[in-house]
Amino acid sequence: MKADRIYNFNPGPAALPLSVLEEIQENFLNFQGSGMSITEISHRAREFDDVINDAVARTKRLLGLDDNFEVLFIQGGASLQFCMIPMNFLPPGKSADYVDTGTWSTKAIKEAQLQGKSIAVVASSEDKNYSYIPKNLAFNNDAAFVHLTSNNTIKGTQWAEFPDTNGIPIICDMSSDIMSRPLDVNRFGMMYAGAQKNAGPAGVCLVIIRKDLLDWIPDTVPTMLKYSTFAAKNSLYNTPPCFAVYTVQLVLKWLEETIGGLDKMAAINQAKAQLLYGYMDGSDFYRATAAADSRSLMNVTFRLPSEDLEKQFVEKARANGLGGLKGHRSVGGCRASIYNAITLEAVQALVDFMKAFEKENG
Amino acid sequence: MKADRIYNFNPGPAALPLSVLEEIQENFLNFQGSGMSITEISHRAREFDDVINDAVARTKRLLGLDDNFEVLFIQGGASLQFCMIPMNFLPPGKSADYVDTGTWSTKAIKEAQLQGKSIAVVASSEDKNYSYIPKNLAFNNDAAFVHLTSNNTIKGTQWAEFPDTNGIPIICDMSSDIMSRPLDVNRFGMMYAGAQKNAGPAGVCLVIIRKDLLDWIPDTVPTMLKYSTFAAKNSLYNTPPCFAVYTVQLVLKWLEETIGGLDKMAAINQAKAQLLYGYMDGSDFYRATAAADSRSLMNVTFRLPSEDLEKQFVEKARANGLGGLKGHRSVGGCRASIYNAITLEAVQALVDFMKAFEKENG
Repeated sequence: MKADRIYNFNPGPAALPLSVLEEIQENFLNFQGSGMSITEISHRAREFDDVINDAVARTKRLLGLDDNFEVLFIQGGASLQFCMIPMNFLPPGKSADYVDTGTWSTKAIKEAQLQGKSIAVVASSEDKNYSYIPKNLAFNNDAAFVHLTSNNTIKGTQWAEFPDTNGIPIICDMSSDIMSRPLDVNRFGMMYAGAQKNAGPAGVCLVIIRKDLLDWIPDTVPTMLKYSTFAAKNSLYNTPPCFAVYTVQLVLKWLEETIGGLDKMAAINQAKAQLLYGYMDGSDFYRATAAADSRSLMNVTFRLPSEDLEKQFVEKARANGLGGLKGHRSVGGCRASIYNAITLEAVQALVDFMKAFEKENG
Repeated sequence: MKADRIYNFNPGPAALPLSVLEEIQENFLNFQGSGMSITEISHRAREFDDVINDAVARTKRLLGLDDNFEVLFIQGGASLQFCMIPMNFLPPGKSADYVDTGTWSTKAIKEAQLQGKSIAVVASSEDKNYSYIPKNLAFNNDAAFVHLTSNNTIKGTQWAEFPDTNGIPIICDMSSDIMSRPLDVNRFGMMYAGAQKNAGPAGVCLVIIRKDLLDWIPDTVPTMLKYSTFAAKNSLYNTPPCFAVYTVQLVLKWLEETIGGLDKMAAINQAKAQLLYGYMDGSDFYRATAAADSRSLMNVTFRLPSEDLEKQFVEKARANGLGGLKGHRSVGGCRASIYNAITLEAVQALVDFMKAFEKENG
């Protein structure tokens, strides 16, 4: 760890690879010899074309996407996607299946309902406060798509495997675990992810869409809310969030060239999660909150024996250079977000601190 | 000018004050002693609250806004506003007046029509290729609002004064001249501006809205497309584009503390425009394209005797450290965008170059 930096377990915006931050800093006044900052360059300039084209190419290589997919960069976060998806893909006469695994899924469902769209909530884990991922799902044969949220940052759950949808394309919010593991991409009609957890800074949403879905979009959808607008212009119909796209490009470059791809990233993520859950499973002091088979490898949610101890834990950790460990205000407790940019060393430092805290207070 | 930086006359994204860029660079790995980059900090953290609250407070002070206005930060650029405005403010039974001064106005009109909204185009300068701002306008008494575009970056025109709307609130796209001059804000129901010209980097749109307009918004508008969602949560309903908001904050701080406010900024902008237009008016070689009474103080569009000379001019200027002088591809010619961050020194350097080029080729 650099002397004045902390181990940052924030849930998002979250830690970025230090080498990425250093590259941005070094070139901030003069990007690629242009004499301008990346924030001052025209989005129509060759320099920016290189940035966005490289970000698209790396996304395709990392995920193994063929030319049936478009890679788009859209503003507004995953929350804007919640309304764009039904607007684009559910004209009158079409229906979709949604699975409710809490928080973000619930919001996606509400946005479809707000527009009066026809959707069915085919499974939910609300009965146990969304602490698990539903199993043995049945989907409607005529569903245009199945909507899932791959990882719930707040409840600390994650789909270890995606359900069999019998060929119905999955539209999946992957905001908090995109690029954390390889995927069988051909099962998805669309994957989308606010970048600010695993792929970059806040301010851009990565949207990967199967080209045939673009034909579903009604002409009456407003221009900036149509996926086809972004696909037709390589996300340059209007000015994109250039700095955010540039940062995503550098994170993807780090994933490919420093880490070595998604298989290697997944192995590191497995090792990190195992270290942390493994320690807690052997402790009577800390208790992981998600069902064992639904545990997130990205957001590790846990409780201590009392709320008072949780408060002390978060504060003392921060004083020891371990930040962002407070659970979401809606659920309380503690949470360590261990996205791609969090090293095994950082998780080890956390576990060491947890051991010492348990010894003092257990 | 710093040794390796150029004079940047880009139309947007555009030049930012060098001191702002240097401050970002200096603090990029450790923001406010947090041990994290501004790109890694939670939008729920105290440090970010300070950023967004300061950006709002400075916007209010600079423009002289009272508590009847909300200052919002929304993603998607002004282009997303083109569809949000009719969606929020034109339920069935309401109508609005639009003035068509080209390009962005035209797009705003099309987005209202695409939604089947009731609007009237009450004036247009299309007859002369949008080279002037229409005069002697008459508005419909029952119009809910009048939509204007204060400055056309492509045609190089600007409203020197806003028309009398007889009390009807003006909704104005100020993307390319916000914060360039003082305004009589009480004539506006809403002012909006993609930040990437005068107020910051690409990736955030500044929206200033009169609170009573929030009551017009139908419940059925999707959550992320309702202005009331942003107003209720200080633009923090979902993760905002943190880096872009932070850069806007620093630009506004520079405007207040280094420049000294909008009166002083306006005087500098007047002097810059006068220098450039003044020189061209005395030359037979360069010809400013906008009608004299409609000239933009922000985007100075001009032609040379031939397209071949224009090409040479742009290339030679770039080789001499003067970038971004090519006119928009839809109109050709040349354009110098002289937004707030462009110094009088930079405009003087441009005029010196223009004189030398005229001498060689005139």
